[in-house]
Amino acid sequence: MGAPGTNHKINGDRLWDSLMEMAKIGPGVRGGNNRQTVTDEDGEGRHLFRKWCEEAGMTMGVDEMGNMFMRHEGTDPDALPVYVGSHLDTQPTGGKYDGVLGVLAGLEIVRSLRDMNIKTKRPIVVTNWTNEEGTRFAPAMLSSGVFAGMHTQDWAYDREDAEGKKFGAELERIGWKGDEKVGDRKMHAFFELHIEQGPILEAEGKDIGVVTHGQGLSWTQVTVTGKESHTGSTPMPMRKNAGLGMARILELVDEIAWSHKPDAVGAAGHIDVYPNSRNVIPGKAVFTVDFRSPNLSVIQDMEKRLAEGAKKICDEMGLEVELEKVGGFDPVEFDKDCVKAVRDAAERLGYSHRDIISGAGHDACWINRTAPTAMVMCPCVDGLSHNEDEEISPEWATAGADVLFHAVVETAEIVE
Amino acid sequence: MGAPGTNHKINGDRLWDSLMEMAKIGPGVRGGNNRQTVTDEDGEGRHLFRKWCEEAGMTMGVDEMGNMFMRHEGTDPDALPVYVGSHLDTQPTGGKYDGVLGVLAGLEIVRSLRDMNIKTKRPIVVTNWTNEEGTRFAPAMLSSGVFAGMHTQDWAYDREDAEGKKFGAELERIGWKGDEKVGDRKMHAFFELHIEQGPILEAEGKDIGVVTHGQGLSWTQVTVTGKESHTGSTPMPMRKNAGLGMARILELVDEIAWSHKPDAVGAAGHIDVYPNSRNVIPGKAVFTVDFRSPNLSVIQDMEKRLAEGAKKICDEMGLEVELEKVGGFDPVEFDKDCVKAVRDAAERLGYSHRDIISGAGHDACWINRTAPTAMVMCPCVDGLSHNEDEEISPEWATAGADVLFHAVVETAEIVE
Ligand SMILES: NC(=O)NCCC(=O)O
Ligand SMILES: NC(=O)NCCC(=O)O
Repeated sequence: MGAPGTNHKINGDRLWDSLMEMAKIGPGVRGGNNRQTVTDEDGEGRHLFRKWCEEAGMTMGVDEMGNMFMRHEGTDPDALPVYVGSHLDTQPTGGKYDGVLGVLAGLEIVRSLRDMNIKTKRPIVVTNWTNEEGTRFAPAMLSSGVFAGMHTQDWAYDREDAEGKKFGAELERIGWKGDEKVGDRKMHAFFELHIEQGPILEAEGKDIGVVTHGQGLSWTQVTVTGKESHTGSTPMPMRKNAGLGMARILELVDEIAWSHKPDAVGAAGHIDVYPNSRNVIPGKAVFTVDFRSPNLSVIQDMEKRLAEGAKKICDEMGLEVELEKVGGFDPVEFDKDCVKAVRDAAERLGYSHRDIISGAGHDACWINRTAPTAMVMCPCVDGLSHNEDEEISPEWATAGADVLFHAVVETAEIVE
Repeated sequence: MGAPGTNHKINGDRLWDSLMEMAKIGPGVRGGNNRQTVTDEDGEGRHLFRKWCEEAGMTMGVDEMGNMFMRHEGTDPDALPVYVGSHLDTQPTGGKYDGVLGVLAGLEIVRSLRDMNIKTKRPIVVTNWTNEEGTRFAPAMLSSGVFAGMHTQDWAYDREDAEGKKFGAELERIGWKGDEKVGDRKMHAFFELHIEQGPILEAEGKDIGVVTHGQGLSWTQVTVTGKESHTGSTPMPMRKNAGLGMARILELVDEIAWSHKPDAVGAAGHIDVYPNSRNVIPGKAVFTVDFRSPNLSVIQDMEKRLAEGAKKICDEMGLEVELEKVGGFDPVEFDKDCVKAVRDAAERLGYSHRDIISGAGHDACWINRTAPTAMVMCPCVDGLSHNEDEEISPEWATAGADVLFHAVVETAEIVE
């Protein structure tokens, strides 16, 4: 038992090839990906991942949320497994690495163990969590959230996309609703490798981020209701312009986030006005405010100021406003032992590293509530993510996967 | 020759029944209509209108823009006809009267002439102009604009809807591309009855608006380009939030319009952000600013201040901005003789009336450039239009159609 040796490294070329192969499914329009959750493309990506895993001798379990669990046996099949993974779904105009790197690095761990003929006491289970992105169906990290007991499965099935399609029905349609009860599995530990999606590691020239904490998140869907009317013949004083009310709230969101500098961020990525016609004053505007901070009290303050400020703005304009929380999680502190395993791995392998707080939400943030969890991060170019131009170097991917390998395999206990 | 007698009135019940019958085609979700231009529903509405006209002994001509011309013969078939009409297309969440009233009142004129066995020297041609609303394909009043020589037909055919479908192809698809060359017809005069779409007539208790002028319009499509990135992990100072840039420009549009109070209005009805995902900072925002005024210099000032202000806002935020004029027309002065015919008709029939400036654009605004033109307006409840709740009373419709009848029939010259 013990840690792998410094000569134990994954096969970076093979990992990169698999990343490029997966990226052919659901290609974007500018070199990235559009493989949104529970679409046909998501189904295709799952089949490819399954095929690769089975070729590496793994067996599949799928739960009722479509979460995939690909098992590599340990010498003690009764020992609690070490889980590792992330998500294969992407943003509508997403990159090739966000999520995918963490899943395929899990597969690469198993492939490498077989190459090097290394056995672990504990089984290793590589996971693909369904609907991490939360674009098509809010909230993000939906299925790891159900797994961790944060949402009920019925509630999750009822989530609707912009066309009114339900998550549960779409999961069934693509044929990836499994029969395992969600959350029944017990984990010895969970590890997730992910690109940073921010600028810090690249700016500081670090190979590895040892993720100690994750920012908390709050998603508030705001509905401003005014009155549809003619843009030409409705006098200015008679207007109830929901689009203008929205514009003022967007400005407020920005102000609130800046007021907590540097401990908070805020923006709205989702914005729809109705009926969206050039000569109709918007009668309704629906948009989602995304606030984040590592401090819970800051998130709570931002939520409060948004609610009060939006009401004030709308009252003054004769508009109605409704706020609904459609996603959120508290700031996360990862498991000290798992974090140490990651830091030790980076140290042992001679990769430069620093502790870091994750700016984004990850499946690991929910799984951390049910099992000891940690994350490994690697840099990405210009900190850019949720953009088709998202880019990483093969060296960064290799370093991240090497560190993941060491942390997972040490935790799964090498059998000499 | 001369004006109709005060006992010559249209059949208000029949007009109302026809309005209600037409409203069954492309019903809205809240009692209004969604019969957008060159959709299947538009095709269906045209067939019903044609059937009614043919039952009233009229013959059809259709031009290459799908404009329908239903001809009722005069005693002198060589005399230039008097044209009358409006449009049958609606907003996506539109009312039952906007446009439709003007077309069906034209039909009602012919039906009433036959009932009363009145003949006119000049033929009367009832017109349905294609794509007046401009929602699906900008600009508004597209086909009357081509008729009046304001746009080329090729340019009009190339207009695209939000799904990238082209106007010309869609017109052909629904089977309403005719073979008449557009604009070849010569008119003795053109009259259009329309609901006010504003609050003035109702507030002052007037039956009839004698439209002397029309506001000018300017539609500018604004494209703000920033950088898509993650809402959680992108630090505030690194953001290029196109949605926030848009919000600031929307505020500016409102300021500019108010600054010309009471001579201008301004708003954006069409707003789209990309990729429209909750956790992606918008990399692009596209929206259309609608400015109107009865004074050309005011419109020009507003356009200038929008261009300068949008550039300044975007420069400060590290965003790009592009402005494209996608629609517009100068303020209109209607033909004095035609306007007088409308005023005389209201007077003769004892309807209360006032002169009024149209706040909205109408096909009559373009036709005014090629033929002597005037408009009749009737009130609508709360000045509300471009809303499914748009409402008028049968009495208002009858009054408007009576005045239209008198103005048209006088101009077409009664044969004693
Ligand atoms: N990592 C990532 O982009 N997750 C999506 C959830 C979030 O918005 O943070
Ligand atoms: N009357 C009317 O609503 N026309 C549409 C063109 C405009 O926006 O004014």
